[in-house]
Amino acid sequence: MATSEDIHEINKQGSFVRQKNRFITPFGDELGQLPVEAGRYRLLWARICPWAHRSIIVRELLGLQDVISVGTAAPIRTDKGWEFSLDKDKVDPVLKIQYLAEIYEATDPEYTGRATVPTVVDVLTGKVVNNDYFKLTNYLETSFKRFHKAGAPDLYPESLREDIDTFNDMLFHDVNNGVYKAGFAKSQAAYEAAYDRLFSRLDELEERLSHQRYLFGDKITDADVRFYVTLVRFDAAYYSVFKVNRNRIIDFPNIWNYAKDLYQTSGFGSTTDFESIKKGYQLGNLENNPYQLLTKGPDISIWNEPHDRNRFDEKVGK
Amino acid sequence: MATSEDIHEINKQGSFVRQKNRFITPFGDELGQLPVEAGRYRLLWARICPWAHRSIIVRELLGLQDVISVGTAAPIRTDKGWEFSLDKDKVDPVLKIQYLAEIYEATDPEYTGRATVPTVVDVLTGKVVNNDYFKLTNYLETSFKRFHKAGAPDLYPESLREDIDTFNDMLFHDVNNGVYKAGFAKSQAAYEAAYDRLFSRLDELEERLSHQRYLFGDKITDADVRFYVTLVRFDAAYYSVFKVNRNRIIDFPNIWNYAKDLYQTSGFGSTTDFESIKKGYQLGNLENNPYQLLTKGPDISIWNEPHDRNRFDEKVGK
Repeated sequence: MATSEDIHEINKQGSFVRQKNRFITPFGDELGQLPVEAGRYRLLWARICPWAHRSIIVRELLGLQDVISVGTAAPIRTDKGWEFSLDKDKVDPVLKIQYLAEIYEATDPEYTGRATVPTVVDVLTGKVVNNDYFKLTNYLETSFKRFHKAGAPDLYPESLREDIDTFNDMLFHDVNNGVYKAGFAKSQAAYEAAYDRLFSRLDELEERLSHQRYLFGDKITDADVRFYVTLVRFDAAYYSVFKVNRNRIIDFPNIWNYAKDLYQTSGFGSTTDFESIKKGYQLGNLENNPYQLLTKGPDISIWNEPHDRNRFDEKVGK
Repeated sequence: MATSEDIHEINKQGSFVRQKNRFITPFGDELGQLPVEAGRYRLLWARICPWAHRSIIVRELLGLQDVISVGTAAPIRTDKGWEFSLDKDKVDPVLKIQYLAEIYEATDPEYTGRATVPTVVDVLTGKVVNNDYFKLTNYLETSFKRFHKAGAPDLYPESLREDIDTFNDMLFHDVNNGVYKAGFAKSQAAYEAAYDRLFSRLDELEERLSHQRYLFGDKITDADVRFYVTLVRFDAAYYSVFKVNRNRIIDFPNIWNYAKDLYQTSGFGSTTDFESIKKGYQLGNLENNPYQLLTKGPDISIWNEPHDRNRFDEKVGK
């Protein structure tokens, strides 16, 4: 997750370039991989953060709640980074840290990047083992398969993996990170380039979702999780804070109904906290909000209104 | 018109309290009033400013273009206030001033308030004679009646004046200035109070406009001009910049069609400049927009789409 600190990650053209992840060892049963065990890892996140929210949703969809524990940082990043101030005595009850940065320092004193969420900590060693937000959901979907609940969806079917990966790459650059590129741009040209790519992709996705219930047909996949975390933050934060105001999500009939459909699916809405999202994006940056005012809108209750996505089920039934 | 300077006009509760006007002598034919003459006055405005925009619209609707000349300041207020930088050599060609403040100082060296638009200058004396944005349209509608073009609308009919005045008072406090109260609030409570009153009034006005084409029936009045100048700035500026994000104007079916109807009426759209509006509100405040980025949205072309307000004419015909 990224807010004001990220403005250091700017190139000469005024464009935002997100830092690379440092801890990228995969989970798996091979030598040199992170061992796949129940009860061994703690996933640290913040409710504002779309990159972390992905893994939390997938963990719920797959029924991994008892396999991987979760620690939740407060939505507004402090001068010292993410803080566990929602917990008693402002300390994560398992890892006994107040700030996320502490565990990065304990892991690698020479690490100079941002301490980001999601972070996976090995509770045996107390060290960061993975902060690869891009691949983390895929590890939960594949390496942790033996722990999935009965009847868990296959979010990353082998036959679709190549297509999903290609799609996710596009989605990352133009949509998930596209909103940040617009919001963190320091030049009008960089801002407009990000804005144009973002809305051009949303137009394509609007068309794609006019034919099918989910991005890859009639079943939820990893790609839907990644699209959802941006959609659910869009009207409440990105539209105004990141200046991506060609349209709101509720202006795209298919995307909006698709977003409500997901929101009303267990694991999505239940892990979505609009107050944290609004606080994180709006109050996270003193420079842009000196009196720390939180918008009263938009109306969140509409996310529980009926959607029309069952219409695709009917087609299948014919 | 008010942007960043106005943050000094804040009371102990964090609420914005707009300064009173200083130059309030009425126009008229009685002793002590400003003489009503063609070619004697110059009306100074800026395209961003709703308070000035009112008088410009009324001047067009009544055909007073050759009676009162106009000088136009640039939309982004400088450290020295409104500047005539759109003009050749950055000087108003008639008054020979670069900054609006110069003519206030020439008029009253002890004046310490903001130099505001609209300002009416007597070109004979080169002095400010009136900056009473609240009553200026009414003077054009009544005192200047003998100069109105043939067939000019009666924007302030005698039989409705009391009702229009009462309505305009409400509109000023809750809507026209209500958006500023929300946007300039320095406390969450002051912001939310302004937000609630604003949207409560918009809900009422949505209902009112479901029964009739204009605010006072089937003819445009002064009240419509006052509502319009806020509506046309709402989605492009207030929604995000002033945090009034319960709804956009295009989300109110009756208000939105009413706004398009007015926009497409000569004198309204022809004096509306969305680029100036966006620049004035978004770039006018360095504190909130350090990299001076201008939003690419929203889509302005929809203001020219068909409206449904003719449906009330049909009713009358029955």
